[in-house]
Amino acid sequence: MASALAELTVHAVLVAPDPGTLRSKRVDELEVDLGGVLGDRHYGLTRLSGNRESACYPRGTEIRNRRQVSLLSVEECADTATRMGIPELLPEWLGGNIVVGGMPEFSALGAGTRLRFPTGAVLVCEGVNQPCRFPGEIIQAEHPDRPGMVAAFVREAFGRRGVVASVEHPGRILPGERCRIHPAELHRTLT
Amino acid sequence: MASALAELTVHAVLVAPDPGTLRSKRVDELEVDLGGVLGDRHYGLTRLSGNRESACYPRGTEIRNRRQVSLLSVEECADTATRMGIPELLPEWLGGNIVVGGMPEFSALGAGTRLRFPTGAVLVCEGVNQPCRFPGEIIQAEHPDRPGMVAAFVREAFGRRGVVASVEHPGRILPGERCRIHPAELHRTLT
Repeated sequence: MASALAELTVHAVLVAPDPGTLRSKRVDELEVDLGGVLGDRHYGLTRLSGNRESACYPRGTEIRNRRQVSLLSVEECADTATRMGIPELLPEWLGGNIVVGGMPEFSALGAGTRLRFPTGAVLVCEGVNQPCRFPGEIIQAEHPDRPGMVAAFVREAFGRRGVVASVEHPGRILPGERCRIHPAELHRTLT
Repeated sequence: MASALAELTVHAVLVAPDPGTLRSKRVDELEVDLGGVLGDRHYGLTRLSGNRESACYPRGTEIRNRRQVSLLSVEECADTATRMGIPELLPEWLGGNIVVGGMPEFSALGAGTRLRFPTGAVLVCEGVNQPCRFPGEIIQAEHPDRPGMVAAFVREAFGRRGVVASVEHPGRILPGERCRIHPAELHRTLT
């Protein structure tokens, strides 16, 4: 059954090279393989579990890395900035790897959705990325005259902080490219 | 926010050791690691894409293996058997690895849901497993006096054929165990 697929535009790609901070910086292209984004602090087939997984694992348990890539949308970042009362929210402050545009409520992208890029690279959405305080601390440092940025970020970015994804097939990802959305097979019964 | 988690009971565990057939056989326990079920034909960190992924990949492309483990439910297998007009539908015929019970509409389990077993093994649901004709051919061979089993299986198992999963953390899985369901974080906006 052929159907028109939604497409997104890649606005920017970034790498966070420093293990000590989630700040990322713009690059000309991303190279991804099954471990994630080459040169990024989140690269790896496995990672150590943290607070997000505390219901399932003792902290520091080695688990498969399903948080390889951080995707953000320009529309949601602009919305969050407005809600926080600041002129803009840079993807660098959030450790974003790929900034896309063109889909309302991008953070609601379903787990299992494939994102296919022109070089053949395919990411799989692993689900919504719920905000923690670390980007808020970077935003606070960027706005020393405006107290309360940490709490404001966690509150206003909730549901608008993009998604995390893992790599299903390697390739390169460049700004200006179009990315096709392949929704996961849905559960349904026919009879 | 603590909440009561749903639990499933493991009724049986099986391995499909032969690359030439999807038939699986009951074993005393499964051992799983990041490649999947040890000794199973679907074991691997990667696999070659097939018809299911034809919208994204040329057939035979190496992609990350998200179809490591096949899970079935006793209730849905019984329902499918009734609809097909046969006394029972054995998980062996479907290449099932884990047969669970206790959740209505098990096949609707959301992608990103974690299944945690007592030894610490954790599987991640990758989504519904839509039926193809191969199990139907095995069922037909088991019922030579009843024509039409292949088409009947594909039709009646649709939405009831269980889910596929990948391994997030290694461990063992045994019949009789209880398995806890950890739903994925849901998208929502607070403000």
